[in-house]
Amino acid sequence: QYVARMAGIGTMMKLPYQETAEGLDAAFIGVPLDTGTSNRPGARFGPRHIRAESIMVRRYNNATRSAPFDSIMVADIGDVNVNLYNLPDSCRRIKEAYQKIMAAGCIPLTLGGDHTITYPILQAVAEKHGPVGLVHVDAHDDTGDTALGEKIYHGTPFRRCVDDGLLDCKRVVQIGLRGSNYSSDPYKFGREQGFRVVYAHDCWLKSLVPLMEEVRLQMGEKPVYISFDIDGLDPTFAPGTGTPEIAGLTTPQALEIIRGCQGLNIVGCDLVEVAPMYDLSGNTALTAANLLFEMLCVLPKVKDY
Amino acid sequence: QYVARMAGIGTMMKLPYQETAEGLDAAFIGVPLDTGTSNRPGARFGPRHIRAESIMVRRYNNATRSAPFDSIMVADIGDVNVNLYNLPDSCRRIKEAYQKIMAAGCIPLTLGGDHTITYPILQAVAEKHGPVGLVHVDAHDDTGDTALGEKIYHGTPFRRCVDDGLLDCKRVVQIGLRGSNYSSDPYKFGREQGFRVVYAHDCWLKSLVPLMEEVRLQMGEKPVYISFDIDGLDPTFAPGTGTPEIAGLTTPQALEIIRGCQGLNIVGCDLVEVAPMYDLSGNTALTAANLLFEMLCVLPKVKDY
Amino acid sequence: QYVARMAGIGTMMKLPYQETAEGLDAAFIGVPLDTGTSNRPGARFGPRHIRAESIMVRRYNNATRSAPFDSIMVADIGDVNVNLYNLPDSCRRIKEAYQKIMAAGCIPLTLGGDHTITYPILQAVAEKHGPVGLVHVDAHDDTGDTALGEKIYHGTPFRRCVDDGLLDCKRVVQIGLRGSNYSSDPYKFGREQGFRVVYAHDCWLKSLVPLMEEVRLQMGEKPVYISFDIDGLDPTFAPGTGTPEIAGLTTPQALEIIRGCQGLNIVGCDLVEVAPMYDLSGNTALTAANLLFEMLCVLPKVKDY
Amino acid sequence: QYVARMAGIGTMMKLPYQETAEGLDAAFIGVPLDTGTSNRPGARFGPRHIRAESIMVRRYNNATRSAPFDSIMVADIGDVNVNLYNLPDSCRRIKEAYQKIMAAGCIPLTLGGDHTITYPILQAVAEKHGPVGLVHVDAHDDTGDTALGEKIYHGTPFRRCVDDGLLDCKRVVQIGLRGSNYSSDPYKFGREQGFRVVYAHDCWLKSLVPLMEEVRLQMGEKPVYISFDIDGLDPTFAPGTGTPEIAGLTTPQALEIIRGCQGLNIVGCDLVEVAPMYDLSGNTALTAANLLFEMLCVLPKVKDY
Amino acid sequence: QYVARMAGIGTMMKLPYQETAEGLDAAFIGVPLDTGTSNRPGARFGPRHIRAESIMVRRYNNATRSAPFDSIMVADIGDVNVNLYNLPDSCRRIKEAYQKIMAAGCIPLTLGGDHTITYPILQAVAEKHGPVGLVHVDAHDDTGDTALGEKIYHGTPFRRCVDDGLLDCKRVVQIGLRGSNYSSDPYKFGREQGFRVVYAHDCWLKSLVPLMEEVRLQMGEKPVYISFDIDGLDPTFAPGTGTPEIAGLTTPQALEIIRGCQGLNIVGCDLVEVAPMYDLSGNTALTAANLLFEMLCVLPKVKDY
Amino acid sequence: QYVARMAGIGTMMKLPYQETAEGLDAAFIGVPLDTGTSNRPGARFGPRHIRAESIMVRRYNNATRSAPFDSIMVADIGDVNVNLYNLPDSCRRIKEAYQKIMAAGCIPLTLGGDHTITYPILQAVAEKHGPVGLVHVDAHDDTGDTALGEKIYHGTPFRRCVDDGLLDCKRVVQIGLRGSNYSSDPYKFGREQGFRVVYAHDCWLKSLVPLMEEVRLQMGEKPVYISFDIDGLDPTFAPGTGTPEIAGLTTPQALEIIRGCQGLNIVGCDLVEVAPMYDLSGNTALTAANLLFEMLCVLPKVKDY
Ligand SMILES: [Mn+2]
Ligand SMILES: [Mn+2]
Ligand SMILES: [Mn+2]
Ligand SMILES: [Mn+2]
Ligand SMILES: [Mn+2]
Ligand SMILES: [Mn+2]
Ligand SMILES: [Mn+2]
Ligand SMILES: [Mn+2]
Ligand SMILES: [Mn+2]
Ligand SMILES: [Mn+2]
Ligand SMILES: [Mn+2]
Ligand SMILES: [Mn+2]
Repeated sequence: QYVARMAGIGTMMKLPYQETAEGLDAAFIGVPLDTGTSNRPGARFGPRHIRAESIMVRRYNNATRSAPFDSIMVADIGDVNVNLYNLPDSCRRIKEAYQKIMAAGCIPLTLGGDHTITYPILQAVAEKHGPVGLVHVDAHDDTGDTALGEKIYHGTPFRRCVDDGLLDCKRVVQIGLRGSNYSSDPYKFGREQGFRVVYAHDCWLKSLVPLMEEVRLQMGEKPVYISFDIDGLDPTFAPGTGTPEIAGLTTPQALEIIRGCQGLNIVGCDLVEVAPMYDLSGNTALTAANLLFEMLCVLPKVKDY
Repeated sequence: QYVARMAGIGTMMKLPYQETAEGLDAAFIGVPLDTGTSNRPGARFGPRHIRAESIMVRRYNNATRSAPFDSIMVADIGDVNVNLYNLPDSCRRIKEAYQKIMAAGCIPLTLGGDHTITYPILQAVAEKHGPVGLVHVDAHDDTGDTALGEKIYHGTPFRRCVDDGLLDCKRVVQIGLRGSNYSSDPYKFGREQGFRVVYAHDCWLKSLVPLMEEVRLQMGEKPVYISFDIDGLDPTFAPGTGTPEIAGLTTPQALEIIRGCQGLNIVGCDLVEVAPMYDLSGNTALTAANLLFEMLCVLPKVKDY
Repeated sequence: QYVARMAGIGTMMKLPYQETAEGLDAAFIGVPLDTGTSNRPGARFGPRHIRAESIMVRRYNNATRSAPFDSIMVADIGDVNVNLYNLPDSCRRIKEAYQKIMAAGCIPLTLGGDHTITYPILQAVAEKHGPVGLVHVDAHDDTGDTALGEKIYHGTPFRRCVDDGLLDCKRVVQIGLRGSNYSSDPYKFGREQGFRVVYAHDCWLKSLVPLMEEVRLQMGEKPVYISFDIDGLDPTFAPGTGTPEIAGLTTPQALEIIRGCQGLNIVGCDLVEVAPMYDLSGNTALTAANLLFEMLCVLPKVKDY
Repeated sequence: QYVARMAGIGTMMKLPYQETAEGLDAAFIGVPLDTGTSNRPGARFGPRHIRAESIMVRRYNNATRSAPFDSIMVADIGDVNVNLYNLPDSCRRIKEAYQKIMAAGCIPLTLGGDHTITYPILQAVAEKHGPVGLVHVDAHDDTGDTALGEKIYHGTPFRRCVDDGLLDCKRVVQIGLRGSNYSSDPYKFGREQGFRVVYAHDCWLKSLVPLMEEVRLQMGEKPVYISFDIDGLDPTFAPGTGTPEIAGLTTPQALEIIRGCQGLNIVGCDLVEVAPMYDLSGNTALTAANLLFEMLCVLPKVKDY
Repeated sequence: QYVARMAGIGTMMKLPYQETAEGLDAAFIGVPLDTGTSNRPGARFGPRHIRAESIMVRRYNNATRSAPFDSIMVADIGDVNVNLYNLPDSCRRIKEAYQKIMAAGCIPLTLGGDHTITYPILQAVAEKHGPVGLVHVDAHDDTGDTALGEKIYHGTPFRRCVDDGLLDCKRVVQIGLRGSNYSSDPYKFGREQGFRVVYAHDCWLKSLVPLMEEVRLQMGEKPVYISFDIDGLDPTFAPGTGTPEIAGLTTPQALEIIRGCQGLNIVGCDLVEVAPMYDLSGNTALTAANLLFEMLCVLPKVKDY
Repeated sequence: QYVARMAGIGTMMKLPYQETAEGLDAAFIGVPLDTGTSNRPGARFGPRHIRAESIMVRRYNNATRSAPFDSIMVADIGDVNVNLYNLPDSCRRIKEAYQKIMAAGCIPLTLGGDHTITYPILQAVAEKHGPVGLVHVDAHDDTGDTALGEKIYHGTPFRRCVDDGLLDCKRVVQIGLRGSNYSSDPYKFGREQGFRVVYAHDCWLKSLVPLMEEVRLQMGEKPVYISFDIDGLDPTFAPGTGTPEIAGLTTPQALEIIRGCQGLNIVGCDLVEVAPMYDLSGNTALTAANLLFEMLCVLPKVKDY
């Protein structure tokens, strides 16, 4: 039945809400944490605003010809009860929550939250699947070691993942990197691990369809995780974020990247760093909702029509 | 268990969600309709934003010493599926939804929506309780007859209620009226029915505790409905509304009015006209959430501590 | 005489105001209606804000070498007095207003308002010119049948036009379509009528000059109407709209489309769905004002220099 | 005929527009100048936004029982074409425009614009009426001598008026003064001329009805000019202004001041310093529109009902 | 020399910047921390925005007749380099920074930051002065024990201060408390220590001059610290804050409180919880800047004129 | 040492502040003037907001491989004390301030302010270097003669520069010109002097690397000045500006232009027309801060790594 868009309790895409991942093929879950943020906070409200703007998303993806809701069981399972005042304890809470999701055989689609959260999520994911391939879209490589003496914040998740052996480093690609840097060889750590690094300036004015063909080859058939930092997009497309960098990716390119993952063995996805207060129009959250829908559409069991 | 404020699916005051009013003493329900608005639309998003800001509301009311959640069963029952394109049909849908709530013996606490909605709500309420007393807070008397040839919009609900015999006119009080008018004797219709009319300028710089003593006498022990148009407040307290009028009531006065209803036989309440886009700070919705909590605290079965 | 930009009563492009279309070759007219909106309302304030931002538009179009104000008589004829509470009655009022404009031999350039209004406008236009060709820029095809039981709202105007025989269906092109859909073959209705459908994703990173050559052939010499829904643009270019969809057209492409209509037998134009409250910068309205100026520049009688 | 509020070319209160003051008893006129502003500019857009928000104002003033539009001829005569780049030349243009208004026997009601403009307005007013009494509401006394070497800016108009003999200094009252100061005896100049100075802190929590009785005695029957700087109000009531000072007047007090002028021989009024960009809600401009309506209601020839 | 208000590096009130407190009687210092915030973050930007709006503050306080800059040495000494990712470490950094200030014999005037910071500040202050009296303005009593398992966040600073013996509990007053609560006797802890608790609802419509006479008696001649949480003010006066509560204090009352501290032996002051993003107008930061100026004006060595 | 981004007095890129240019190779300097603005004012706050957003800029430019802070002495030398009320006097003050900078042998990098300021800056620059080449990015050619009778405002600086012989006209390029015009041959004046004019519509969908090769040839080895009006960018990239024009340059193109100046003999740079109030997200100022960093990176003495 057709329902007025703004009517109803605000779950993601008006999906049913359930408390656990039991019985689901995929689940939307929020992680309202932003205490790992180095500049502008606010990503704790990302899940709420992404859910709010998701009322615009409908059932069918005419571009990919995917019918996710006709193919798999999906629900919104609410938010992780994070500890806003203690980042390591939040990481523990997130890891435990995702261990339950993995145990249920469900694919998590995460509404962040700042990028810190990908570290504990990948702890749970790799516990089940072993080291994973990674499609990482971001303005930043997030492989710093420490800041202000801390090892856990939104600039270090992928360093920690490497430290813990959660990544299959030859199957990591980072797309959209740019901006000024603290060191003169900023992406050295990743390259030393074997990451493929794709600068934003190598994407300017280009279709990313050819790149994604290469990425599919790189990823092969083994498990892949998609981590999409909304600041990978240019700030014109996503002003509502905490550490924007100019001259980034476009939303068509974002769609090319995600749609280019169709066929991969995706075991989890996240969309992080939406800080809604810096975007009065709501379009950052709207973009995030659509990108999460696109991720849903490329999950392994989703059928075409 | 303490939960981070922004975590979780956004029901009113983090209450459980259930689809019907069965088994409830009171229920929060949204009516996301604003097509009866004469100036700035946006109240269709009132329920969403009031729910969002209600995360600040806690369990106990230290001023009234009320413990509503220890006393009665309350839940959020979602929104009426209004017809945005057809006001009379929306009214029919609202009336039918409220007939079910009334049949369940539940007191509705409504998150508006524009003031049009009070007419069909009162049709359902009066069907059960007979003509009701009314505590109506508003900048406008909302007793117009027609506009642009239409009998149904947010300027006419109480005229329609009188036409249908839904009000016990000697037990009606309108508080906060002000602003320029289309006619030189604007509140004549109400006064002819026996309404008590309290101008905003008679409230300036005054406590309304004495007024509410008189109102309690006026209302007696028979059923009373509270209809609170957020534009009864001064626009400094509630900028997020569609037809603001300067020099209105204060939030302390709003609390005095609602707290002054303690002991009355309240059978329903609404809080209408929150148009969030005109209030970047969210404080209009925050005020609405608090006023709805205060209404909950003065319901008949709520115990003191 | 040079006048400070913000000085003066706010007519479109500081043109003279007159009450009727008598004596004019073309007229700007507002239709401040948004009760056909499915998501965010606010387009009722489109005409006011488009007029406000039009103070930036000057006399000459250096790109097209058009001098509209040296060529034809143009004025601002104010707004249609719509009925905000009754969509069918608003449609009647709009149709009657445009019948008078058509009777005066004047080309209307409409400042919307939501897209509902194009249906009654085309009733008046086709009454004079017979079924028209249509250049329709939009994220949505707007050929739905009903929603919430209603046949009239902003998702159905072109279905209604087909029902009434107002369109020369082989001469219809829809440009910019995208987004998720309610059905798995969303543009089927239009294609069955013979519409040409151009997806947004087929426009990414391309000049639309070649497309418009084909469109000019498709349109031929018979009457053509331009209907430009601002949400055809990407939300970065036009955040101030009610149902934005990501990954849309750019403003250079919008200019290519309109400039590509030069030489066609244009009998009317509209620019709809500007909801200014979602764009604090005013640039959506600014874009709309410029696109309306570009439409003016390609009207049949406008001379080059 | 009832017209939808947002419909129509945006004149003040939907009044007719005419180019000159001929035949009018009173005229609304804009002065879109803000180059005399010391802190935040933007008052150049004051006239546009005050007109826009004036759509909320209706025909009758139920509080004063005034029916201005039934009593006198009023129109909107547009804006003075100021020179944004040259303050002295702007002053000359303003003076000349007002000399014409005065010559037509019309009372000007000015929509500012920063407070600089009151100086040239009073040059024209005093040329006709001789030195005038002044009811000046403001956070600042605006009697500075120079700033940055300049004698003309929004901090000096009343010093310049004294220099030119435009004020009947014993009949000047300044209400609402407050804030920190450049000197330790900031209001000395005014007091030496005989101005009555009323601090904001002497108005806190008080009705100003008694003050206005004294002011009416002070003003007597001779000509009086009302100059209302919106920053006289507390910034909560009027955030949209350039040099806000905390702890100011309330809108009820503003109404008491203006309504307290009923019976005086008012020869002109202005409402200045509305800088709309700092008030997303539009309520500063709405307040300004209402205060201008209240000024209209107390003009000498306006009849009660 | 008069300088254009917006010119110059943005120190507090355009004071000189110096790196340490050496040689100063009083110093403005920022603590840009908000990771102790339970609802809306953003107070990390409080110092920047308070400094920005402080350009409106001038040399003399005409209400208190204080000339602080003629009396004592004051400078801006920048910000504490907090650790955003680790609250206990931030507390350590703050305490050490303030120990240096205290050692220099300088009175700190702090620009917060969330209320967590008052705990480490008082550790340093009490280390020098012994347990201090406290004038605490706030909507909340901030004497919680733990939240989410943590003892350090913005809801607990005064509990921690009691635990550490930093307060002279009979000389503590909390003004402005209100809102719903987690327990049915929310202010019990403070009262048990001997705190005086003043509800907001006991301040409505009242001058606080009499209260402050009592407070001066309560405080006597021993050291007093002023901690002003901007959410003590009503959200209309200070929307830019993280946990607003309706029906609070007014800015005139805030001035009465601070001016009522004149003559006390003040050893430190803070102004916390300004989260600028929720206040587009900037007036929350402007209010904060003015309140800090008023605090400066009542410091022991400041002379009257 | 790593410092939290928001900590510290807000100098440009956290550089040291010093009062004069003595001993510096390059200096950032603000000119907070906007009284030359024809439409929306606010650029007087450009320097403050550019400094605020510059906290995101780090030490190394990975794209150009420049290490400016390892190569040359740079500081922030504050703002010119402009006269907001008198444009010619402001120009005099600016010229004198820049004469001192030039005398110190320092390259100025200017944070505007509206484009008026480039005229007096170039007076000082050309006094030292003789007529300079000019890379001018803008939507407008800014070669008007007068407006409202004035020769000095933001539409005329390059006409005045030609009048005074400050430009080596064969070495002037203007990039990004577009929009409607007051005359039918708007760029005639510049072309007559020998300026190269590059329309925005000739840049659409193109890399500007080839253009910059030509520009480098055009400029040769003689002194070059870069003047970057932020409105050269499309309003989606830079909404915070006073006279936006649709369909402009992108930030990748802006980077290509500035990076394409590497190797030129740059003697000064400015970034003008940032009016922050029209960009809630702060990204216009962020873009400006990054563009100024990029300009710094291409200064003659800056070494690669
Ligand atoms: Mn990241
Ligand atoms: Mn990132
Ligand atoms: Mn109402
Ligand atoms: Mn109302
Ligand atoms: Mn459409
Ligand atoms: Mn559309
Ligand atoms: Mn003034
Ligand atoms: Mn003032
Ligand atoms: Mn607190
Ligand atoms: Mn608090
Ligand atoms: Mn320019
Ligand atoms: Mn320009």
